[in-house]
Amino acid sequence: MDTALLIDEVRLTPILIADPPLLNTQGVHQPYTPRLVVEVVTRGGVTGIGETYGDGKYLALAEPLARALPGRPVSDVNGLFALADEVCGDPGSTDARVDAGGLRGVQTADKLRLSVVSGFEVACLDALGRTVGLPVHALLGGKVRDTVEYSAYLFYRWAEHPGGGAEDDWDAALDPAGVVAQARRFSEEYGFSSFKLKGGVFEPDQEIAAVRALAEAFPGQPLRLDPNGAWSVPTSLYVAERLADVLEYLEDPASGTDLMAQVSAGTSVPLATNMCVTTVPEIAEAFASDAVQVVLSDHHYWGGLHRTRELASVCRTFGVGLSMHSNTHLGISLAAMTHVAATVPNLDYACDSHYPWQTEDVITARHTFRNGRLDVSDAPGLGVELDREKLAVLHRRWLDDDGRMRERDDAAAMREADPAWKTPTIPRW
Amino acid sequence: MDTALLIDEVRLTPILIADPPLLNTQGVHQPYTPRLVVEVVTRGGVTGIGETYGDGKYLALAEPLARALPGRPVSDVNGLFALADEVCGDPGSTDARVDAGGLRGVQTADKLRLSVVSGFEVACLDALGRTVGLPVHALLGGKVRDTVEYSAYLFYRWAEHPGGGAEDDWDAALDPAGVVAQARRFSEEYGFSSFKLKGGVFEPDQEIAAVRALAEAFPGQPLRLDPNGAWSVPTSLYVAERLADVLEYLEDPASGTDLMAQVSAGTSVPLATNMCVTTVPEIAEAFASDAVQVVLSDHHYWGGLHRTRELASVCRTFGVGLSMHSNTHLGISLAAMTHVAATVPNLDYACDSHYPWQTEDVITARHTFRNGRLDVSDAPGLGVELDREKLAVLHRRWLDDDGRMRERDDAAAMREADPAWKTPTIPRW
Repeated sequence: MDTALLIDEVRLTPILIADPPLLNTQGVHQPYTPRLVVEVVTRGGVTGIGETYGDGKYLALAEPLARALPGRPVSDVNGLFALADEVCGDPGSTDARVDAGGLRGVQTADKLRLSVVSGFEVACLDALGRTVGLPVHALLGGKVRDTVEYSAYLFYRWAEHPGGGAEDDWDAALDPAGVVAQARRFSEEYGFSSFKLKGGVFEPDQEIAAVRALAEAFPGQPLRLDPNGAWSVPTSLYVAERLADVLEYLEDPASGTDLMAQVSAGTSVPLATNMCVTTVPEIAEAFASDAVQVVLSDHHYWGGLHRTRELASVCRTFGVGLSMHSNTHLGISLAAMTHVAATVPNLDYACDSHYPWQTEDVITARHTFRNGRLDVSDAPGLGVELDREKLAVLHRRWLDDDGRMRERDDAAAMREADPAWKTPTIPRW
Repeated sequence: MDTALLIDEVRLTPILIADPPLLNTQGVHQPYTPRLVVEVVTRGGVTGIGETYGDGKYLALAEPLARALPGRPVSDVNGLFALADEVCGDPGSTDARVDAGGLRGVQTADKLRLSVVSGFEVACLDALGRTVGLPVHALLGGKVRDTVEYSAYLFYRWAEHPGGGAEDDWDAALDPAGVVAQARRFSEEYGFSSFKLKGGVFEPDQEIAAVRALAEAFPGQPLRLDPNGAWSVPTSLYVAERLADVLEYLEDPASGTDLMAQVSAGTSVPLATNMCVTTVPEIAEAFASDAVQVVLSDHHYWGGLHRTRELASVCRTFGVGLSMHSNTHLGISLAAMTHVAATVPNLDYACDSHYPWQTEDVITARHTFRNGRLDVSDAPGLGVELDREKLAVLHRRWLDDDGRMRERDDAAAMREADPAWKTPTIPRW
């Protein structure tokens, strides 16, 4: 194979990006959140870029993987998994739960490694595509649609971070009227026509009222509610019953496959998840027990774009719906999501993205949603360019941080406003 | 995208290739068997090649697909399925069984279309790889092994076709000693170290004796037996019990998922299939009922190399083993099998291939098995070259045929030796 495809250097740049005070059941987003930018440089002088989580445990896994890559072909993305198993961690600890029950689902050592691999896989595919003149979607077999639909991601939020931090021009949204106002702005500015509300923040009746207000404001448009597993089975069924006529799906009402299966058995509202099915070993039981009818894929969790396509095929085979999940991310990951989403025949629902909440980015030209959609780029690679000045500024912020922002901790951020706050026990209601 | 990647022309060449008198439960291979060679030519002047079944019903589907391809990018292989659905057939007939119970499993209209698409997908990937300088495995995410292991495919056979036809230098094999002699030659010439016997030809006790003779001749080496669904559940269990200590797996002892599940429940010998799980809709029930422990993938059946990778991921997710099936095929398909097999992490068993039985080919340099393995090519595309003179000779044979060989019919071939022969009723024993 062409030696120009061999990896010459890998650069890892941890950064802190501004994040608004978005509320969830565990707390609130910090003023800044860590991300990691991965650059893979080939001997041919081409640089590919990827992006993943930037907390310390991810950085610790990314560093040995970065050291192991030089000399390997950039096209060898299937080999990244065995390589990561070999260099990143103790195989004996692969089933250990590093942190169970957080917003990102279970966090086994395996899953952390996959999240790290995803950033490298995307960077490799970007570099490969740039080298051979193919868009990333063509490296995945080609797009089956020219645009990808996204959903408006509505959050209860404050206008500002209580302890200071980057500001944006959004108002607080703490009641049904505030949620509807937020949705209207999303609809007007970006053309989103489906809406997901992050719930689990207020009493269920208040969140029911917010969804009903959305249904009145946007009649017939798809609505979703996601309390991140905060509810008991009876509460989940109570909410499902009251919103059955307007919900496209209910996302992770209860926590874990067993409870989700109990909810599922009691309602006709489809249940979606990005918490109880986030790894391959969780699939068989969840499908067999009909605990979920929609899986929200996430190329970070699942180990990249090829693995996301494989998850899509598993869902297709078993008649389970597919959508796409999002944590706070930048334009590199949004480009990657859009490429893979464009190649999947059974993308049954509009994808989630936090992107409209992000005021900062590391690419030269921000993505623009039109009619709630992004165009699928036909440019070589991902079709986005790294802005090194912006990257340097955000990296400087990471270097200058006293350590408080380098690990995302929504409960700690909440304690800025409420010193007595503790991560709530699940079920919260 | 580069206009050089747009498809300019598609050429379809049906051929007849010499095939030895290999016996199976339905009859015997004809002296010649039909295959279809697909050539996809880009505007950039690059030609990619693929191969699939050549019977009339496949040709009838291939022709409209070939007409629909010009102007589309050769990289757009994910789009071939919707295109084939659109141009090849009546969607209303997708669930009709065209021919149930043959050696190729159920033959729905969907499955026939997928077999046709597979030839086009491989040709497109070959053309894409040649254009951008990447081997096909790199277009599938890269190889995870440098060689792919194959199994010796042993057949009961006659020395010659009773009605005449191409000859080869193999002796008859109609008893345990003949089978062992055949296996020895395979072992010596190609280095195969696992052996599969096509059964369902003689009384089960005789086939048990053949496998036991193999076990004595090749102690500790993996053995398989495949009667193509010819046995009842009690017969299957009878054979399994007598060969449990030497069989790697028992392939399709009984016919259909229900009977396979009954056999599976009664034996610890793993059951493999290329008959009851050959399409996506068959997977869920077979896995839920634990009817099979190994799926023999086949890129023809499943719609190409990307779909084969997806099947592999489904098997991996559900803890089901994976191997690779073969019908009579040439070197183009063997190259395609080898590329995709190289990319699949969970290729748990040596692959089947009829290739050593084929004395003719359409490529310039035949594949050579060493130590039972093929090297994975790193040349652009599939790494094989079409020999147009050989292709022309085999096409001329197809043109000159009076129609008897253009449809593979193992029962008709058997009637050359036994005019009273009818396709046996299943279960035969």
